[in-house]
Amino acid sequence: MNAQTSTWTPAPTSLLTDHYELTMLQAALRDGTAERRSVFEVFSRRLSAGRRYGIVAGTGRFLEGLREFRFEGPRLDFLQRTGVIDSATANWLAEFEFTGQIDGYAEGEAWFPNSPVLRVEGSFAEACVLETYILSVLNYDSAVASAASRMTSAAGSRPCLEMGSRRAHDQAAVAAARAAVIAGFTGTSNLEAGYRYGVTTIGTAAHSFTLLHDDEESAFRSQLQAQGLGTTLLVDTYDVEAAVRKAVELAGAELGAVRLDSGDLAVQAVRVRELLDELGNPDTKITVTSDLDEYAIAGLAAAPVDSYGVGTRLVTGSGVPTSSMVYKLVARENAAGDLEPVAKKATGKGSIGGRKTALRRRNAQGVATHEIVGIDTVPVDDGDDRPLMQPFVRDGELLDGWTGPDAVLRAQRRHAGTMAELPRAAARLSEGEPVIPTVLES
Amino acid sequence: MNAQTSTWTPAPTSLLTDHYELTMLQAALRDGTAERRSVFEVFSRRLSAGRRYGIVAGTGRFLEGLREFRFEGPRLDFLQRTGVIDSATANWLAEFEFTGQIDGYAEGEAWFPNSPVLRVEGSFAEACVLETYILSVLNYDSAVASAASRMTSAAGSRPCLEMGSRRAHDQAAVAAARAAVIAGFTGTSNLEAGYRYGVTTIGTAAHSFTLLHDDEESAFRSQLQAQGLGTTLLVDTYDVEAAVRKAVELAGAELGAVRLDSGDLAVQAVRVRELLDELGNPDTKITVTSDLDEYAIAGLAAAPVDSYGVGTRLVTGSGVPTSSMVYKLVARENAAGDLEPVAKKATGKGSIGGRKTALRRRNAQGVATHEIVGIDTVPVDDGDDRPLMQPFVRDGELLDGWTGPDAVLRAQRRHAGTMAELPRAAARLSEGEPVIPTVLES
Repeated sequence: MNAQTSTWTPAPTSLLTDHYELTMLQAALRDGTAERRSVFEVFSRRLSAGRRYGIVAGTGRFLEGLREFRFEGPRLDFLQRTGVIDSATANWLAEFEFTGQIDGYAEGEAWFPNSPVLRVEGSFAEACVLETYILSVLNYDSAVASAASRMTSAAGSRPCLEMGSRRAHDQAAVAAARAAVIAGFTGTSNLEAGYRYGVTTIGTAAHSFTLLHDDEESAFRSQLQAQGLGTTLLVDTYDVEAAVRKAVELAGAELGAVRLDSGDLAVQAVRVRELLDELGNPDTKITVTSDLDEYAIAGLAAAPVDSYGVGTRLVTGSGVPTSSMVYKLVARENAAGDLEPVAKKATGKGSIGGRKTALRRRNAQGVATHEIVGIDTVPVDDGDDRPLMQPFVRDGELLDGWTGPDAVLRAQRRHAGTMAELPRAAARLSEGEPVIPTVLES
Repeated sequence: MNAQTSTWTPAPTSLLTDHYELTMLQAALRDGTAERRSVFEVFSRRLSAGRRYGIVAGTGRFLEGLREFRFEGPRLDFLQRTGVIDSATANWLAEFEFTGQIDGYAEGEAWFPNSPVLRVEGSFAEACVLETYILSVLNYDSAVASAASRMTSAAGSRPCLEMGSRRAHDQAAVAAARAAVIAGFTGTSNLEAGYRYGVTTIGTAAHSFTLLHDDEESAFRSQLQAQGLGTTLLVDTYDVEAAVRKAVELAGAELGAVRLDSGDLAVQAVRVRELLDELGNPDTKITVTSDLDEYAIAGLAAAPVDSYGVGTRLVTGSGVPTSSMVYKLVARENAAGDLEPVAKKATGKGSIGGRKTALRRRNAQGVATHEIVGIDTVPVDDGDDRPLMQPFVRDGELLDGWTGPDAVLRAQRRHAGTMAELPRAAARLSEGEPVIPTVLES
């Protein structure tokens, strides 16, 4: 980690939104309901693909984007010019500034079905317009963090490195790197993630570097010269055994690591480990990087591998490329001025009305046993429990500690703590039930 | 389409890159190979998941980003401060400007295994640093376009509307909307896509709008008042039949459409169509929007549905969330100054050396029969063929016609033309072989 204040701010975020958020706003402004006090909540009805738990990520990135969620200049002109909104709505948007409350699960925290991951309270108008942006950020980042957590869990004490940028949208790749680090990855290849969030970046050379040179030896010499003996040499461009011998011949016992990026990694790792030891390089490490996911990592547990570079499967959520989080109106002021619960009743997509608060129930040994979600009631800590709702925004003011590089570092520590608290069954990769049940209290 | 010049330019793109691109650059600058003339190519070894064809998207977005691919200010400082690069490399990057040639398949075009989708020629240094960014853009955008094309193909003449923003990273959502439109979608819910690319945006109201009001009737009245009788009313918040009756009672025969977002869509569409007809609303359309993909769309072909709103499965590539495109050095200048083919030989990930050019072979009826890829040779048009490589950049200068809103519109037309040219089997949704074989000529 290289945490420090970054000068980076996101581009305007206000149009990263569905058209209907603004048509609803316009109708509500006209009929007088726009200012009704409202409670929206982000939650998921299920853990996808039989996962045992999910990991929250993206909240900090959303809060950074919230500051740039303004309607002005050419974007506001666009909305009027194309008839998305009328001039009254344009005037409202030009003045828009979120003035409400935002609470939720901190990044790195585990989530389960019906966990109130984020709760947004304010007028209908100001909470409505944030829907799409909030869901985009949380659904993608949490999908990556949830997959990443299974990978770091399967890897045990061996480091996992994020290398999936080329398999994700260019900006999604930055978010993926951030989410992976939150879930325990030790570094990323993505430079923009290093720049924005202070995370450690890593990388040495690709096959093209070997091919650029007239022979492998020239490439290795050049890389050792430029990066030092501690670098990682990629040894599978031509013949792996010949490459390892050459690498040791050139670098000696100080050679940092060799990288395998193709073939049967378990078999090759054993051969390369034997060869390195035989050549007098017991301290040279082996890193593997080809099509890894949590299952492949678990399958390599007995192989002499020192670190894992994970790409495609990480940034695409290892089979779950998006979370199924939704943003639902669960309570709003009625004509009489009282807050009342509301819920959609239709088939299969019903929601539970009422304002939620959550805590993680733990037994006397500190092991999590239940996710307790109170509906219009705050669940009572029985002595060993841990409250889960954190305050992020108060009266529109962003509270300290949830954004920037430091927040990523803290989220990584929080993830480690949360994982240590879950029952051991959380580490199971097979499909099954959530590792702790969610209990709704009202 | 609402094509016009947008004032939008992307944020700096140069760090949307893997760390190792710059460490390779640094070593190559030191050893003198950085200026070797090189040819890199983007291609995929396969079509994932038994798809019959893929659709290229992202090229225009990459070309827009290439103009912002500059190393300066705080980003360049970051690279030096964190030791990613030395000062000589920093000096080189500060002056960086791509000066080479870029050719490839136009957006909207079909691609097959080994199609040279993009070819970048220049010095090793200038082509190397673009790798990750190019792949991020093409892999994501083409994954979405490829899925979208199967959906528009399955939908036939019924419009498909993109509504997946909340299930994709916030910026990926914009690219997904653009890619979907290229592959035949008629509009998107994503406002930023409308702003940047001039594509049509659509949307009316969500369940939260109904819940905001004291009853469904108040919500419908408000929406009809604000949006006019031609709007689409969401009728499944409580009871569908009661909602349809109320909608017709309030709007009369002019009601534009009703939307179904849950339940068994085929069964409900039949019931709602009958009810609308019975109530004297034969012109009121039915749009459906719940968990659709190409298979669900095909399954609804016989149902009285007028348009499809597609979300999650579109923006996640319908099971293929990223393309498997790679960027490989296929030829480079040797020590003697001659360009020679190069290729990685290792297991399973081998590449084919040599500079590629492609054309689509067509029979006398204009039906595509083969993808012809010439290796260090330009395949000869036999009279009915269509050359596939388009020039995008010449000596570093972006050529006209490949970026901005107009390029999206042209790509959409190109997609329609390409699809009309492929054999009918291209429309099969089952897993199988590419609909035309790729023939390598050398």
